[in-house]
Amino acid sequence: MSLLVVGSIAIDSVETPSGQAQEALGGSASYFSYAASYFCPVRLVGVVGQDFPDEYLRLLQNRENIDTAGVKVEPGKTFRWRGKYKGDMNVAETLDVELNVFGSFDPDIPATFRETPYVFLANGSPTVQRKVLHQVKSPKLVVADTMNLWIETARHDLLDLLKQVDGLILNDQEALMLTETTQLVAAGKKILALGPKFVIVKKGEHGAMLFSDDGIYALPAFPTDKLVDPTGAGDSFAGGVMGYLTYADKLDGETFKSAMAYGSVVASINVEGFSLARFKETTRHDIDTRFSKYRDMLKLV
Amino acid sequence: MSLLVVGSIAIDSVETPSGQAQEALGGSASYFSYAASYFCPVRLVGVVGQDFPDEYLRLLQNRENIDTAGVKVEPGKTFRWRGKYKGDMNVAETLDVELNVFGSFDPDIPATFRETPYVFLANGSPTVQRKVLHQVKSPKLVVADTMNLWIETARHDLLDLLKQVDGLILNDQEALMLTETTQLVAAGKKILALGPKFVIVKKGEHGAMLFSDDGIYALPAFPTDKLVDPTGAGDSFAGGVMGYLTYADKLDGETFKSAMAYGSVVASINVEGFSLARFKETTRHDIDTRFSKYRDMLKLV
Repeated sequence: MSLLVVGSIAIDSVETPSGQAQEALGGSASYFSYAASYFCPVRLVGVVGQDFPDEYLRLLQNRENIDTAGVKVEPGKTFRWRGKYKGDMNVAETLDVELNVFGSFDPDIPATFRETPYVFLANGSPTVQRKVLHQVKSPKLVVADTMNLWIETARHDLLDLLKQVDGLILNDQEALMLTETTQLVAAGKKILALGPKFVIVKKGEHGAMLFSDDGIYALPAFPTDKLVDPTGAGDSFAGGVMGYLTYADKLDGETFKSAMAYGSVVASINVEGFSLARFKETTRHDIDTRFSKYRDMLKLV
Repeated sequence: MSLLVVGSIAIDSVETPSGQAQEALGGSASYFSYAASYFCPVRLVGVVGQDFPDEYLRLLQNRENIDTAGVKVEPGKTFRWRGKYKGDMNVAETLDVELNVFGSFDPDIPATFRETPYVFLANGSPTVQRKVLHQVKSPKLVVADTMNLWIETARHDLLDLLKQVDGLILNDQEALMLTETTQLVAAGKKILALGPKFVIVKKGEHGAMLFSDDGIYALPAFPTDKLVDPTGAGDSFAGGVMGYLTYADKLDGETFKSAMAYGSVVASINVEGFSLARFKETTRHDIDTRFSKYRDMLKLV
């Protein structure tokens, strides 16, 4: 089975207590597609500017399991983000954003991608996300991400989108903001009532929770002591989750649990370096080794 | 095996978004001893004033597995705390504290309690905690709790105490404060270097982490959707952990994991009501039922 992802491809400059990275490959769809490619073929749709480094394009193009036929190069500059993490590194301080070619992104799904069974609408405006939905043909599973910006500025469109997707992935602060509540368990249940069959709430270093009609599933983050850069952790987590679901091609409770666990493992590896540095040196075997440790840690006799 | 706990017995007045409780039974040692009594015999040492309601004394006295021979009634009033929880209920706002008889608490461990193999020094000044240590004879395991007040005002005494205990239990904010760091994994490791063989960091709704030479063990909170009052959750968690360790009378990694899980289960029950309301209606069988659900939730195939 294949997985379609539509989202941002960016050039990030990041500073953390561990150091910094200048003009590094970033963006929700970059992290997501690389993370998912450990598990299944990924079809990537996004846009970059003419300044986008060849090296970054080749990194995605040459990756087995990533099909970049949907990556357009347009006149202008690539989406740029500059940010800084301090303290507990749970929240990034955005120093500068230039949307550039991503600001007018009008996704055009290649004909060969339109029948992809698994679809992930990475962070983007609900309007853009809906445009993708209108181009795909009878997908098995559609999951969307969102962020505080759209909750604040496009709530109506977002609520409309939630009626058309199977699942929503968002972080804890966004879940509380969307539901105007102060408790996560209540927030998760309220989002379910808005339409999606399941909701995954990402909690950074505290792990993640899955809400569905089957109840609540919570798991901790894989504890790493090498936190270097949290940028892309949430997108990597989502990539692991969706990649595993696509690989397994099943949507029962046990498969979802494994998917959440693989998402946690992949995210814990990603945060150990800047940009995609750790992914570049990580094999599927490394992921399975950490997954085994994680499973053993969680196992109670 | 038996478990000795020395700590506060209080009268609490609490307000949460779910309602309020006036002049209810509270205090670290009350929650701890009730939680631990599901697993092993508990020897309780504390002090109350002459105003302490008979009903509360009887609740502890009549509980099978709690020996109240160490509870002294002294002239004056009982320790009183008045607090309020808002929003995510992760932090209590203290509206009023009256130490009363607890302010001059000078623990006198009954002769019949002095050879208890498992010892828990519930939250109290490091000076008082050390006085207990000087009265117990060759315990198998001594674990201490602490709080921000002592980290701020009695750091030297606390650091001294850490060299004399086997384990420390504290919450996430306290761990960061004690180690003057901003990341929990780093904090846990730094505390290990201060003396204890293990450190348990409580994270409220996000679960808990165990640090030892064997590595890091993280587990999520049991997700309950009936959060009524978080008062005593940390003490109940500690009671479950220590109660199970005492019952098992083993200190290997698997036993610690089960102990942490039982602590989480007991705490998740406690927060579903004010004061000890939920404990009063909960049997060991109920705890085992929830433990099974928790184990199944965490199990990855």
